[in-house]
Amino acid sequence: MSTLLDDYSHKRFNILTGEWILVSPHRAKRPWQGQNEAVNNEKRPSYDENCYLCPGNTRINGENNPDYEDVYIFTNDFAALQSDSPDFEVNDGLLIAKSEKGICKVVCFSPDHSKSLADMEPSEIQKVVFAWQKEYEELGSNPLINYVQIFENKGAVMGCSNPHPHGQIWSQSTLPNEVDKKDTQQLNYYKTNGTSLLGDYLAQELEKKERIIFENNAFVVLVPFWAVWPFEAMIVPKAHKSNILELNDEEAYLYAEAISVLTKAYDKVFNTSFPYSSGIHQAPTNGKDNNHWHWHMSFYPPLLRSATVKKFMVGYEMFGSPQRDITAEKAAKMIRDLV
Amino acid sequence: MSTLLDDYSHKRFNILTGEWILVSPHRAKRPWQGQNEAVNNEKRPSYDENCYLCPGNTRINGENNPDYEDVYIFTNDFAALQSDSPDFEVNDGLLIAKSEKGICKVVCFSPDHSKSLADMEPSEIQKVVFAWQKEYEELGSNPLINYVQIFENKGAVMGCSNPHPHGQIWSQSTLPNEVDKKDTQQLNYYKTNGTSLLGDYLAQELEKKERIIFENNAFVVLVPFWAVWPFEAMIVPKAHKSNILELNDEEAYLYAEAISVLTKAYDKVFNTSFPYSSGIHQAPTNGKDNNHWHWHMSFYPPLLRSATVKKFMVGYEMFGSPQRDITAEKAAKMIRDLV
Ligand SMILES: O=P(O)(O)O[C@H]1O[C@H](CO)[C@@H](O)[C@H](O)[C@H]1O
Ligand SMILES: O=P(O)(O)O[C@H]1O[C@H](CO)[C@@H](O)[C@H](O)[C@H]1O
Repeated sequence: MSTLLDDYSHKRFNILTGEWILVSPHRAKRPWQGQNEAVNNEKRPSYDENCYLCPGNTRINGENNPDYEDVYIFTNDFAALQSDSPDFEVNDGLLIAKSEKGICKVVCFSPDHSKSLADMEPSEIQKVVFAWQKEYEELGSNPLINYVQIFENKGAVMGCSNPHPHGQIWSQSTLPNEVDKKDTQQLNYYKTNGTSLLGDYLAQELEKKERIIFENNAFVVLVPFWAVWPFEAMIVPKAHKSNILELNDEEAYLYAEAISVLTKAYDKVFNTSFPYSSGIHQAPTNGKDNNHWHWHMSFYPPLLRSATVKKFMVGYEMFGSPQRDITAEKAAKMIRDLV
Repeated sequence: MSTLLDDYSHKRFNILTGEWILVSPHRAKRPWQGQNEAVNNEKRPSYDENCYLCPGNTRINGENNPDYEDVYIFTNDFAALQSDSPDFEVNDGLLIAKSEKGICKVVCFSPDHSKSLADMEPSEIQKVVFAWQKEYEELGSNPLINYVQIFENKGAVMGCSNPHPHGQIWSQSTLPNEVDKKDTQQLNYYKTNGTSLLGDYLAQELEKKERIIFENNAFVVLVPFWAVWPFEAMIVPKAHKSNILELNDEEAYLYAEAISVLTKAYDKVFNTSFPYSSGIHQAPTNGKDNNHWHWHMSFYPPLLRSATVKKFMVGYEMFGSPQRDITAEKAAKMIRDLV
């Protein structure tokens, strides 16, 4: 099988979304004459008086950040979702809309302006995991909220407007599209087989090994067979757990270790602070039986050939299907060799 | 209805894909401290000896371009899809893949290196439309090809590696994801109502007027109610036609005029050559009865606030749903005022 997948264009099936992606392995040889991204390898100071996320500084709305010591969380000053908006619906022929409520938060990972997750110790990242757990629990128990999306945009190329290490949480009343797809696929599989889709997939991958980057007692880091982004990777708990609340302290540490190993390896791929968007997909907080969910965290990094050349998801990808050049297996090997 | 949609976060339903998008109109006030794109407003020469698309020049594979006078089409030297690859399938538990064949072409819109569609006369653009028709017909009658995706990536920010005016055609054996969704939605509607989904939508929009940018005898240019990109727009034929082959010469001219009007207005939005990816969605060439299809062309431009500040589709958008700040109605008014 491998030889054909290495040499000829093909589609791979994403078992979690039910969608296909186009792989064109022969195309990696194409020369690049297009746009180069700016690289910023400048060392940042530990504290920046102009940063609205640094401890003690004043934010745009006039509030002062406390002198926080590890993780600091506040409600987004420019939240995309609000909790106090009116309920309304548009059902005017083919014009269909609905109000959507939610709560958006910012999670500072560290008081140290100069760091990223890749520079933090697993024990420090573990505190971020604890904060995510607390937010998932609190937001999830709010009757307005049925889904909690935890994510990070890292790097200017990923729309991140402040290099201070931070992520976001957007929580809302309904399930976003990507979550809805994964809910359906996992539920169908669980109903048919009585087992976790991702758990069964993991068992296959652990046997094959070619897409595995790292594993510890509780987690596997791998490039999924259906990866879209050039160096896309996924952190999956070995045990079938539907959300991050089900992690005990030791597992939270092992999760932090997995994040640490992956982000450190990423930084070595092109010798630059590796940009990405990452996100945790886990069970909705809609009070339903969500046993079919197997939570996981995905990383979507845009860089393709160097610190300055990214993959553009444009024309064909927007109108057709996602497309990649380098295979998942090659990417996995490159990252694994840097662990 | 309008006041609520202008002020509060809500979801809108895309009737063509069956998916929702999140709109956060109050968020347009957010300050921007993130990445700025490079602007290139430098006037290009009509001929560039280093451009591999200019007439008479040599391409990377050693072939010479002819001294073409209007439109010139050739097979992509680094095609993502090949027609001569072997057939294969992977069905190994949860690892699922299939070979995919196809033919990729490059379409030079004009011999003049300095131009874009916005600088060309409708009569010149009409020749591009004729070329698209010819390719749709020829590729579509190839037994390997069941779908023909015509698209353009314009501008470095959209991954376009050469400013010479050109687009691409990727044609392939199976329906890409986006086409598949639109096929399903249009078919369901056609089966239930016996009319064209997009035709009925158009009738509603022509009555409301608030999202219309321009119309002539055969085409409407509008911002769809469910637009994702800040200045997304759509060109839709008034008559229910399933593909571009059904256009007669006069309609081809009116289509060219619609393209010309929209792209010229776009260039005025931020006083810059407006980047976008555009694509034509039309009936598959799979020999089936595709009467439910109503073809259309969409433009996805990334700029949000200025020639240098784009909308980033990152964390939440990748893991949740597409999200926009400025409403479709405001965007439509801004573009319409520049026609
Ligand atoms: O073939 P091109 O123009 O070099 O490539 C461009 O368009 C393709 C189709 O949308 C994308 O896959 C590439 O990422 C983009 O850079
Ligand atoms: O809220 P931020 O970090 O300023 O904004 C960033 O992340 C958001 C969520 O993915 C995106 O909608 C924005 O386009 C991006 O710039």
